[in-house]
Amino acid sequence: MQFGIIGSGSWATALAKILTDGNHRISWWVRSEENIRYIRQRRHNPHYLHSAYFDNSLLNMSDDIRQVVADSDVVVIAVPSAFIKDVLSGLPADAFKGKKVVSAVKGILPDCNQLLHEYLLDAFALDLSDYCALLGPCHAEEVAAEKLSYLTFSGLDEELTRRIADCFHCEYINTVVNQDVVGVQYAAVLKNIYALGAGIAHGLEYGDNFLSVYIANAAREMGRFLQGSMAHLPGTEATDNLNYSASVYLGDLLVTCYSLYSRNRTFGNMIGKGYSVKAAMLELNMVAEGYNASRCVHQKNIDFGVEMPIAATVYEILWEQLPAGEGFRKIESRLV
Amino acid sequence: MQFGIIGSGSWATALAKILTDGNHRISWWVRSEENIRYIRQRRHNPHYLHSAYFDNSLLNMSDDIRQVVADSDVVVIAVPSAFIKDVLSGLPADAFKGKKVVSAVKGILPDCNQLLHEYLLDAFALDLSDYCALLGPCHAEEVAAEKLSYLTFSGLDEELTRRIADCFHCEYINTVVNQDVVGVQYAAVLKNIYALGAGIAHGLEYGDNFLSVYIANAAREMGRFLQGSMAHLPGTEATDNLNYSASVYLGDLLVTCYSLYSRNRTFGNMIGKGYSVKAAMLELNMVAEGYNASRCVHQKNIDFGVEMPIAATVYEILWEQLPAGEGFRKIESRLV
Repeated sequence: MQFGIIGSGSWATALAKILTDGNHRISWWVRSEENIRYIRQRRHNPHYLHSAYFDNSLLNMSDDIRQVVADSDVVVIAVPSAFIKDVLSGLPADAFKGKKVVSAVKGILPDCNQLLHEYLLDAFALDLSDYCALLGPCHAEEVAAEKLSYLTFSGLDEELTRRIADCFHCEYINTVVNQDVVGVQYAAVLKNIYALGAGIAHGLEYGDNFLSVYIANAAREMGRFLQGSMAHLPGTEATDNLNYSASVYLGDLLVTCYSLYSRNRTFGNMIGKGYSVKAAMLELNMVAEGYNASRCVHQKNIDFGVEMPIAATVYEILWEQLPAGEGFRKIESRLV
Repeated sequence: MQFGIIGSGSWATALAKILTDGNHRISWWVRSEENIRYIRQRRHNPHYLHSAYFDNSLLNMSDDIRQVVADSDVVVIAVPSAFIKDVLSGLPADAFKGKKVVSAVKGILPDCNQLLHEYLLDAFALDLSDYCALLGPCHAEEVAAEKLSYLTFSGLDEELTRRIADCFHCEYINTVVNQDVVGVQYAAVLKNIYALGAGIAHGLEYGDNFLSVYIANAAREMGRFLQGSMAHLPGTEATDNLNYSASVYLGDLLVTCYSLYSRNRTFGNMIGKGYSVKAAMLELNMVAEGYNASRCVHQKNIDFGVEMPIAATVYEILWEQLPAGEGFRKIESRLV
């Protein structure tokens, strides 16, 4: 299998390290010729994960995305979701024909409210069976430090997914495979909403006792949404009896909610302290993933009709001017 | 309902504050006459939760445990489990006749390997239907600070349990009721094992990615043990279809595993760093709850036969000289 990686941010760099540490040659789309030269000379990315050094003989870097995709059997897309459309716009409609795509994208494409496989189906006619999602509770920084982490690969074709996953297995990466390709992506969207809510709770000065109750109930709500969504999703017939305590669901929720330095936490904290959404965005000069995620889930759930008091309230706080304190008093009454 | 509280440590003091803040008069067994005088004069416990002030008109303190039990309809036992037998030894065998007992004890009685209700049945013929367990993810310090916390009351008699729980409801305490009186107590024992294991992982220099995977899998294992144990336990017929994501199970596991300053964490960390159990005990001058808990669960599970790779390995590390690093490599291979 010839892998191609699209993207050169922190997560893409971590994945390039994982594959090359396993001695796989990769094609790598890096946006600028200057960065490519830097990596060739200094053997690490100038902007991210400075301690991750590469074996140059395994890197085939290019700033021509068409070339990188054409050279690859398996294309790993690891670009922040807000830039996906822009980055892929240079590709012809049949670019992924005969290829497999691995999504290492976290979250939804904000303008069209789609998960990556939905967009790739529309724009490139990519079949869901040629697609898998790569997720896990996995901060890139710990990959750079070679701390043992678990990645979950989710695809309809179990054998293909297992073969892809095996290429990522190395000394510090264990891999897990399941078939819940849509569910795991929703889980990754939901966790950002709950983490942003955890930030709001912190801003409102709730303590650790409450936080643990909130997160436990969020885990339950996540499972309910994932189960409830299945009836409405194509290609999910093989996903009965899922273990929602597995790392890709509960583990990722925990690492995200308990991370003190995430954007969701920081953003939520400001909302809890009384900033408006607009003021928090201006002050922080960024949008937290959970912000768009809450609207996405709200809209999807109009069809699904799942009871999700936490996510619904976070949505109302962020998008419908519900005061944060009032919102959390509503949440309080729903926790067990 | 006239409440009596047995104990004057940090958790007993928090419970006395909760009940009196709800304007309930309580009888309170405080071990020494000197401490009673101090509380009368200064309105707070000299040793614990200094910021918790009491309305003396609601306190009926005594160092005579017979008197306190005799005066009470509902006896709340809030003594560290290692001292229970000693404290209750002054009571006649019929002391709890016609009374209800609320266990606020965490963990098992170490020498006899029993949960409190098992001991009270043997020593005082107390029926399980007159007993309820009070648990929750609830650090006493946050009760003193009046941060919103959730307490779960578990008893076979749902209506009685609800009436008792209602007395603890106040501005900063929400209450939850279920009937899984044995399961919640096991959950409280298991969480200490997993928290001690989290400390070992930290000592072995695993990172946050791994910790989240470990805790998610521990949650799954806890649910498996609780379900598996039910078939072997009397009085558990009413507990089908339990929500193991509820605060008393998952929430308490989270707050315990993520607490940086707990004894389990500190003790486990030393084991992970290479100290022997004996050396860690000498150095810290204490025993972590998870230490005895791991043996208790090991012994119970000889009957239950539940697959629990994490708890079993923590037991082997603590009691059978399995090197911690080797143990965690075994655990690694079992996580998903």
